[in-house]
Amino acid sequence: MEQLRTVAIIGVGLIGGSIGLALRTRKLASEVVGVGRDAARLDQAVRLGTIDRGTTELSEGVAGASVVVICTPVDRVAEDVRRSTEAAPAGVLVTDAGSAKRQIVEAVERHPRSGAVFVGAHPVAGSERRGAAHARANLFDGRPCVLTPTPRTRADRLRRARDFWSALGCRVLEMGPAEHDEILAYTSHLPHALAAALAGTVPVEWLPLAAGAYRDGTRVAAADTSLWTAIFRENRGPLLKALDSLQDRLAGFKYALMTDDEESIRHWWEQARQRRDLFSSG
Amino acid sequence: MEQLRTVAIIGVGLIGGSIGLALRTRKLASEVVGVGRDAARLDQAVRLGTIDRGTTELSEGVAGASVVVICTPVDRVAEDVRRSTEAAPAGVLVTDAGSAKRQIVEAVERHPRSGAVFVGAHPVAGSERRGAAHARANLFDGRPCVLTPTPRTRADRLRRARDFWSALGCRVLEMGPAEHDEILAYTSHLPHALAAALAGTVPVEWLPLAAGAYRDGTRVAAADTSLWTAIFRENRGPLLKALDSLQDRLAGFKYALMTDDEESIRHWWEQARQRRDLFSSG
Repeated sequence: MEQLRTVAIIGVGLIGGSIGLALRTRKLASEVVGVGRDAARLDQAVRLGTIDRGTTELSEGVAGASVVVICTPVDRVAEDVRRSTEAAPAGVLVTDAGSAKRQIVEAVERHPRSGAVFVGAHPVAGSERRGAAHARANLFDGRPCVLTPTPRTRADRLRRARDFWSALGCRVLEMGPAEHDEILAYTSHLPHALAAALAGTVPVEWLPLAAGAYRDGTRVAAADTSLWTAIFRENRGPLLKALDSLQDRLAGFKYALMTDDEESIRHWWEQARQRRDLFSSG
Repeated sequence: MEQLRTVAIIGVGLIGGSIGLALRTRKLASEVVGVGRDAARLDQAVRLGTIDRGTTELSEGVAGASVVVICTPVDRVAEDVRRSTEAAPAGVLVTDAGSAKRQIVEAVERHPRSGAVFVGAHPVAGSERRGAAHARANLFDGRPCVLTPTPRTRADRLRRARDFWSALGCRVLEMGPAEHDEILAYTSHLPHALAAALAGTVPVEWLPLAAGAYRDGTRVAAADTSLWTAIFRENRGPLLKALDSLQDRLAGFKYALMTDDEESIRHWWEQARQRRDLFSSG
């Protein structure tokens, strides 16, 4: 990839910070500007080396940018795309890192100018931790990044988005925004909802007798409330469908338990075990 | 604790092997005998240093034992207690490591001789891995071990069981078998069932887009099918109750999603997050 001029990152948290670190470590951009609402956090991000400089003024931050990456919570992405498009040079590529895509892409494309410079993206990487302090330059290494172009996406912007996310270490895939949301409802949003359901179900006074299964099964329930409230709302249709599938599967297990049907319990577990093995070996 | 004479371990897998390793590393017994069905695996356990010698004859293995620890799957424990009691010296302590206790304790106490030497135990430690090859001498360090005495349990055997499990590194607790099963249904059996439900629900072709939440949420679904089929069957009453609680909690979340009720989604996640934080800091 040709070296980028200024890259502006809107929202310098775990994802935005890791993008900044990766860009700077790999010397992919001449300058990385961080845009945020909290000047102290931006100063910290500069000290941590995740960005070259920070500003609380979005229009100033994107003014000279060849690429703008929106890393704010999903319910703010579309608005930040629109504002960035207005303030950035005409040739800009705007992309994002939101975990749900259909609503964002639809909202962005309601504004023809935004739609013309935007390519929706979702790097499938992260952590239950927050903030640039947990950023890692290798967070995206070998991880999938789903681009969600539409018929309105410009071919040159799509090519530049592919180059950009590949340069960060991602394996780039492409699919429609709705397809992305259907899949991620199962592979990410459902596991998060289940972790919270489990954490909310086990009485606190019994936690001293919880072990590895509880610990791992609830780990992501430690993630940020606002972030996940926004993701669940953005993708509630597909997530409800995934929850129904999960409940069907639990119902089968409950029936086998109620009837003490050894063969069915065994088969139910074995199917799950084999699928899990495919993930481990995949 | 006074040094033990011979300790016999019935079932030299992950748990039995780790008990053997801990006994031998801490020099707690003059001899550790492993009893199993597969001579080659027993030879391997001797080579790994988890036992001093192995035998496929239970009666021979327990003949000189001052303590017998039954580490076979839960559906075989009661029968192995009975057989060990018949072949071991009259002064023997028989204890076990089963993850569900009420059915085992009831079955053992149907035989007065077995009931007189037995103290049910559940060291809350483990792994989704199987076999003595994964045994660790420190598996029990600081972990809870629940003893489940009943009015029929002899005071001297209870004292010796406390000493035995404490010497292995466990924090020893006591409660009734039914109370144990009710709690473990929530803290262990429910998380295992959910991990398998999740692994069974996510379509295999979408696994390339699964990340940390799926990985951790399904980890224990890799555990052994026969082992978990037996545990689920032994504790199906309390587990069904725990599954109902979980489903109630999921139903609340689904309703909040369907009505796009931001405050309820936020509150639902926040409650879970706070409980998970109590576990992390506990």
